[in-house]
Amino acid sequence: MFTVNDNYLKLPGSYLFSTIGKKVAAFKEANPDKTVISLGIGDVTRPLTSSVIKALHSAVDEMASADTFKGYSPDLGYLFLREAIRDNDYKSRGVDIDVDEIFVSDGAKSDSGNIQEIFGADNKIAVCDPVYPVYVDSNVMSGRAGIYNPETERFSDVIYMPCTKDTNFAPEIPSETPDIIYLCFPNNPTGSTIKKDELQKWVDYANKVGACIIYDAAYEAFITEDDVPHSIYECEGAKTCAIEIRSFSKNAGFTGTRLGFTVVPKELKSKDTSLNPLWARRHGTKFNGAPYIIQAAGAAIYSDEGKAEIKELIGYYQENQKVILDGLKSAGYEVSGGVNAPYIWLKTPDNVKSWDFFDTLLNEANVVGTPGSGFGPSGEGYFRLTAFGTHEATKEAIERIKRL
Amino acid sequence: MFTVNDNYLKLPGSYLFSTIGKKVAAFKEANPDKTVISLGIGDVTRPLTSSVIKALHSAVDEMASADTFKGYSPDLGYLFLREAIRDNDYKSRGVDIDVDEIFVSDGAKSDSGNIQEIFGADNKIAVCDPVYPVYVDSNVMSGRAGIYNPETERFSDVIYMPCTKDTNFAPEIPSETPDIIYLCFPNNPTGSTIKKDELQKWVDYANKVGACIIYDAAYEAFITEDDVPHSIYECEGAKTCAIEIRSFSKNAGFTGTRLGFTVVPKELKSKDTSLNPLWARRHGTKFNGAPYIIQAAGAAIYSDEGKAEIKELIGYYQENQKVILDGLKSAGYEVSGGVNAPYIWLKTPDNVKSWDFFDTLLNEANVVGTPGSGFGPSGEGYFRLTAFGTHEATKEAIERIKRL
Repeated sequence: MFTVNDNYLKLPGSYLFSTIGKKVAAFKEANPDKTVISLGIGDVTRPLTSSVIKALHSAVDEMASADTFKGYSPDLGYLFLREAIRDNDYKSRGVDIDVDEIFVSDGAKSDSGNIQEIFGADNKIAVCDPVYPVYVDSNVMSGRAGIYNPETERFSDVIYMPCTKDTNFAPEIPSETPDIIYLCFPNNPTGSTIKKDELQKWVDYANKVGACIIYDAAYEAFITEDDVPHSIYECEGAKTCAIEIRSFSKNAGFTGTRLGFTVVPKELKSKDTSLNPLWARRHGTKFNGAPYIIQAAGAAIYSDEGKAEIKELIGYYQENQKVILDGLKSAGYEVSGGVNAPYIWLKTPDNVKSWDFFDTLLNEANVVGTPGSGFGPSGEGYFRLTAFGTHEATKEAIERIKRL
Repeated sequence: MFTVNDNYLKLPGSYLFSTIGKKVAAFKEANPDKTVISLGIGDVTRPLTSSVIKALHSAVDEMASADTFKGYSPDLGYLFLREAIRDNDYKSRGVDIDVDEIFVSDGAKSDSGNIQEIFGADNKIAVCDPVYPVYVDSNVMSGRAGIYNPETERFSDVIYMPCTKDTNFAPEIPSETPDIIYLCFPNNPTGSTIKKDELQKWVDYANKVGACIIYDAAYEAFITEDDVPHSIYECEGAKTCAIEIRSFSKNAGFTGTRLGFTVVPKELKSKDTSLNPLWARRHGTKFNGAPYIIQAAGAAIYSDEGKAEIKELIGYYQENQKVILDGLKSAGYEVSGGVNAPYIWLKTPDNVKSWDFFDTLLNEANVVGTPGSGFGPSGEGYFRLTAFGTHEATKEAIERIKRL
């Protein structure tokens, strides 16, 4: 008799955003007259930029003619895209990354879920608390997390790094030594960032103890301050201890278009085994490339015109960051994040539970956010709002919250 | 110190098609004057059909406007696509599949590589020999295959079902009882098919012993004979023992466009645990949907116009099947497959090794095929050609082979 992967049964509840989606759908069905505004799931609202649209149409036309039709893409992604990434995301910042260290994928979520596969089952992971659920859940699924304790809301074999008001919502180096350290800056969900000298300490630590950092830089396009690094490879020695995951979802509005990439440096090794060929093998075996037309669209954001449009697009959402931050502050809320990051992290009023605040917000203001506790126990009593709405909806949502 | 997934180190050599790609690239570089024809990797050559192109352009336009822009897709895929699949691929054949049993993905390769994840590590898999490498490799990566023996070219914990001339290139029920059985019909690489009453025997067997069949039906669109089933669910009782994987790659020319789906019936259970929510959880955690524009394009093949075009597209390749089959037969080759399937399986002349025949064909005829031994030891002495070339290239390739 076949058996199932028991590790799946250790997962508590369903995936956070699926749960929110179901709650919102139920509310809408029960209240068809209400206009619900979502500042919840982190989905973008602006259309794709002109250069991207142009590139998509042009690539579609190529697919219509036998002479220019494209079949299977190269395993690591098209060279035109990997070269654009190398030059614009790395070389321009003084970072030397080779094209065969760049793996184009269908998005950062897939990569951050799949990357754990190339590590041994006995590796101990360290994650921030609160944290993007995919890091933990994917390790639970592969049996690396141990057993869930519903009272502490923690897995027995995971090292949690609390990110609280006391730590300025940033992790501190844990007392127990981890093998794999998940870091995400600018942070989801708290919107906190890390200065280059602080990140250098993590890199030095990882190199010292032989840990691998999985660095999720999905939100780097939102960085405005000079001393906040866009890539972990801006730190010395990062190539021997870090994998970096990047997304087109938020900078280029690709949440429904799907494109991302992961950098696995060739120098990154466990003893004599380099991780780069292992990830290449996974890519070649369990993935067949992002669609050609999507890769062509991705390359378009690196043209001069494309870059200007992306800057404007990010600027649009950055205005929302300010509206949310200023509005909540003026209403007496305790808030952080929202600078260098599209996420605003707010303390719930009167210390109410995160999910209770979710329900209040949904039922009374018809605004959807994300309960902080959904990201981990240290997120209890906090709430995440995103800057990805339209200006109009964001302003309206903040007005509604003020009236609560 | 972090460690790597040692299972990856058990994989012999690199992924078959990557190896072929490297060999061909090296040959082309050394022989820039030679025109190489590939009937190898199974990549299509015809452009996308008019309906698909129209749907792509239209969906791209939707992404250009805030009112019609689409962000994250629903976890399982857009309902418009899942309904089209349910109605056209199943209901039309008398098969009742629910929309929430259909999971849209970025392709059959990803699904056939990832599906093993939801099964326990102790499950014993059975595969055909020769076989599409992804089934075995993905199980090796997760530690389910045991140790590779380079002499037998087999993994210690895998049950191999030889598909040889003696078995008419179809598997026979193995003497040792498996937990998971991978079946692919029409078959890759041999091009063999299975009649409905034969497939029913597998379904009955799986239900009897409590095995789960992973049924890869990526090539079902090539079926022309009435008694060959398009879906395993045409067999009675299949919903309690089978997962079905489908692809848009070959029927709609989506190899570089990326779309597929997997059906996991709710009735499929290991004791009390249904596999459907486990796959849903994986989908929700490690995947973020196929791009909206690609899903819209996928739906276009189910319109009346789309269906007519697909029929014509498949017909184009079916002409190649005939050219290859007839040409090789007239040249004295022993061939099978090529009916109901885009793959032609040929015996190498004088029993030369598959890779030697690959080299001869590449060097002397400048034609690329796939060595049968790359699919497993029982493929030794065989060679796979695909019908996915252009008419001109296919005819020319066969002429060149005849001249060898």
